[in-house]
Amino acid sequence: MGGPLDALSGGVGGPAALGPLLATVLDALETGATRRGGPLPTGRPADLAARTAEVLTVASGPDALARLTELLAHGAADPADPYCAAHLHCPPLAVAAAADLAVSALNPSQDSWDQAPAATALETALLAELAALVGYDPAHGAGVLTSGGTESNLMGLMLARDQKLDGIVELDGLLGLPAGARPRIFASRAAHFSVQRAAALLGLGERAVVPVDVDRDLRMDPAALERALAEASWAGATPVAVVATAGTTDTGAVDPLPAAADLAARYGAWLHVDAAYGGGALLSDRLAPLLAGIERADSVSLDWHKLGWQPAAAGVFLVRRAETYVSLARRAVYLNPADDEEAGYPSLLGLSLRTTRRPDAFKLAVTLRTLGRAGLGRLVDACHDLARAAAEAVRAEPELELYAEPVLTALLFRYRPTEAVSADPALLDPALLDRVNGELRRDLLRSGRAVVGRTELPGAGPGRVRLKLTLLNPHTTAEEVTGLLAEVVRAGREAWSAAR
Amino acid sequence: MGGPLDALSGGVGGPAALGPLLATVLDALETGATRRGGPLPTGRPADLAARTAEVLTVASGPDALARLTELLAHGAADPADPYCAAHLHCPPLAVAAAADLAVSALNPSQDSWDQAPAATALETALLAELAALVGYDPAHGAGVLTSGGTESNLMGLMLARDQKLDGIVELDGLLGLPAGARPRIFASRAAHFSVQRAAALLGLGERAVVPVDVDRDLRMDPAALERALAEASWAGATPVAVVATAGTTDTGAVDPLPAAADLAARYGAWLHVDAAYGGGALLSDRLAPLLAGIERADSVSLDWHKLGWQPAAAGVFLVRRAETYVSLARRAVYLNPADDEEAGYPSLLGLSLRTTRRPDAFKLAVTLRTLGRAGLGRLVDACHDLARAAAEAVRAEPELELYAEPVLTALLFRYRPTEAVSADPALLDPALLDRVNGELRRDLLRSGRAVVGRTELPGAGPGRVRLKLTLLNPHTTAEEVTGLLAEVVRAGREAWSAAR
Repeated sequence: MGGPLDALSGGVGGPAALGPLLATVLDALETGATRRGGPLPTGRPADLAARTAEVLTVASGPDALARLTELLAHGAADPADPYCAAHLHCPPLAVAAAADLAVSALNPSQDSWDQAPAATALETALLAELAALVGYDPAHGAGVLTSGGTESNLMGLMLARDQKLDGIVELDGLLGLPAGARPRIFASRAAHFSVQRAAALLGLGERAVVPVDVDRDLRMDPAALERALAEASWAGATPVAVVATAGTTDTGAVDPLPAAADLAARYGAWLHVDAAYGGGALLSDRLAPLLAGIERADSVSLDWHKLGWQPAAAGVFLVRRAETYVSLARRAVYLNPADDEEAGYPSLLGLSLRTTRRPDAFKLAVTLRTLGRAGLGRLVDACHDLARAAAEAVRAEPELELYAEPVLTALLFRYRPTEAVSADPALLDPALLDRVNGELRRDLLRSGRAVVGRTELPGAGPGRVRLKLTLLNPHTTAEEVTGLLAEVVRAGREAWSAAR
Repeated sequence: MGGPLDALSGGVGGPAALGPLLATVLDALETGATRRGGPLPTGRPADLAARTAEVLTVASGPDALARLTELLAHGAADPADPYCAAHLHCPPLAVAAAADLAVSALNPSQDSWDQAPAATALETALLAELAALVGYDPAHGAGVLTSGGTESNLMGLMLARDQKLDGIVELDGLLGLPAGARPRIFASRAAHFSVQRAAALLGLGERAVVPVDVDRDLRMDPAALERALAEASWAGATPVAVVATAGTTDTGAVDPLPAAADLAARYGAWLHVDAAYGGGALLSDRLAPLLAGIERADSVSLDWHKLGWQPAAAGVFLVRRAETYVSLARRAVYLNPADDEEAGYPSLLGLSLRTTRRPDAFKLAVTLRTLGRAGLGRLVDACHDLARAAAEAVRAEPELELYAEPVLTALLFRYRPTEAVSADPALLDPALLDRVNGELRRDLLRSGRAVVGRTELPGAGPGRVRLKLTLLNPHTTAEEVTGLLAEVVRAGREAWSAAR
């Protein structure tokens, strides 16, 4: 590390100060990845916590950057490794990570124009492009970058609450509602848990979320949605919002969007489409038709840190009609005084739940311009191909059981021992199978061999544990996926012998 | 740009792919800053929006990164420039920006251990250090990194709501409360607007926030707080929370924390201390005593992207007692299954409002180890010295009027023409003075000469507009601040001639 320790990253002199530090970071990233030598570090969490404490004790002064970066890299679960394929946790594009450095160095903040002149213009232009991608009329829509689907879902439900409950919420809160008012949100049993979280945060309570049944692929059943809306309506409840998921976390299932839009319109509910995962399909000519109907949503969540290869965070929240985007409008005398706005100084403050806000739009704009929609679409298709190849490989392996064909880039399956396959699988204790699958996953983690996901199917009782691959690395080959599945089988056999 | 456009930043090969891209970014940052040649680009927002649209039209393929980065740098309001001193918008340390690159490259996500093994351990260790800095017992506290004070304030008020309203809020929402229940939040008139925003978001409504009077320095008046609590209590309302501000946005005023703690305890309210700005004083031996009493808060907001020189975001939310941190506890079968937690896999999911979450703790841990508390404290003191020098310079200039002595690193003042100084200032039309100060600030922006802040004192009627300097660049000299003030006077004279 050359230069003074307190050098700044901005100004004309910033790049010269950054140069040697970035070289240190690149060296440490490489050393750390080489020492890791796989998808994640070996050992238990407690081992890594102890090593972390040790490094924190010795790292100081000019050595701290190298030592801690090496620790971070060595101790990463690296989604760029083909054997790390558990979550909606993508390996970033180098160009996106490089663009994000420019943001860190300059530190613009989107809460006022005079903290981010160009970044303000760039975010506005990017959001218009994304609105068009969704099928909105960019002249009438509005939106903002968010920390991810959880924040975007919260914003959609906040706008729904404030519109459907008649504008009183902002001033007097929910306590101003007439007694007996029961605001309700309708979401499938496979919708993301952030819907319940949002309901609790918004003061509506988790019980305000009415769970709608799903089919075996975890897609919302439109007849069940209709029934739920009719029953709630009949009982005098207020249908505030329907949340349709375009790409469930576990199976990538896309709810029937046109039916959801019809029903939301008929019952006067806001339609929010959570396309945090599935939004990436809009980049692919092959997969975009899955999302037909999304343009009828009142609001949409998109996450480009999933099928978009951005470092977190790169969430986007969009509304179809800007005039419905009212809950956050606010005059802060130190950020957007009226006379500045009259003089042509735009303000993004009223669009975000945050005040200080890093311009996450920048890396996304650079990526879109570098690769184009077509280039990104090819990456989406590569991951989709990989998921289909993985499903094929699971089907071909008698000790693995596929749950369903992949819709996007994720698939569920589980290990089951050969004796269950050769005899009657129904004889197997489902709780034992759950334990074995949970244990084999932890064994893969402990030995540093692989990071696979694990989830549970909706419903009650044992036998619902499934393993999951979420394939987000477009450079992974089908052979590597087969190798990963072979590790699962190996670990499964060990776990099964130990468990019996 | 060498190598394929879709190279990844992670893995053993990531650093090699990043190398040339980072060189491109550094070049473009330098070119952009040189072309800007000052604190911000000249021209009106519409000019910059047009240039942005132009660059977005031509930038494509391997050139996109350079072109867009140069646009971002050229079009930045750069806090590393001594003439950019408006907001709580700090110039980042180069070492922090470099550390943040490691995070972008590896893309850990804090919502499950198997997406961020080392980052999980690092955040946990860092939060214990920050708890100790605040005066909490790290063995009993808890916390999380946030996007900033706005999110941290929301979290504090969410926990307060859910605790004081007896646990029913999560399941049944505020509608489950008995009729006539009136939850109330007490915050000073100079508290951040995010308190009102949080009340609206939480379903309590903005009117749930009882504004408490402040003294001339914008410090909460403890007698007024006592009166407000007593009146609300007498009227049957529920005092949910007292929000005390440690460092108001405009003047850096610190509310009387011990009195606020006494009163909150007496009335059974949660005490949240918003130290988003003032928390930086904890790094300085000279200023830390201003925050005595903060250790009695139930929860605290700290922002290291203010007096901590981190690129956004680097917010921190802390609670004194981990057992009060319950609202977000949640079992997500795909992120933190019970058997994984039993097997020693820790989960930070229940600590954050977000799901995917970038490890903003990393850059802060690197900075703390590089400079130490003492090194960072010297930077805080340098900015404090600068604010005092600025106040001195304002006092010495007859055409400027100081509002109050700076407490931390910000000061309010305004331009007033010499004729007002030589004659009776009371004869001046206060609305005209407001207009002139607003106009001179925009003139400094348009001409690219300086970024100074502008705010309004609490209250009603004209004459409340003030200019603001927030001094967060420790390398700025007193001479540069004097030069900046000379630009204000020059622009003030022009605005005054034009306005009369």
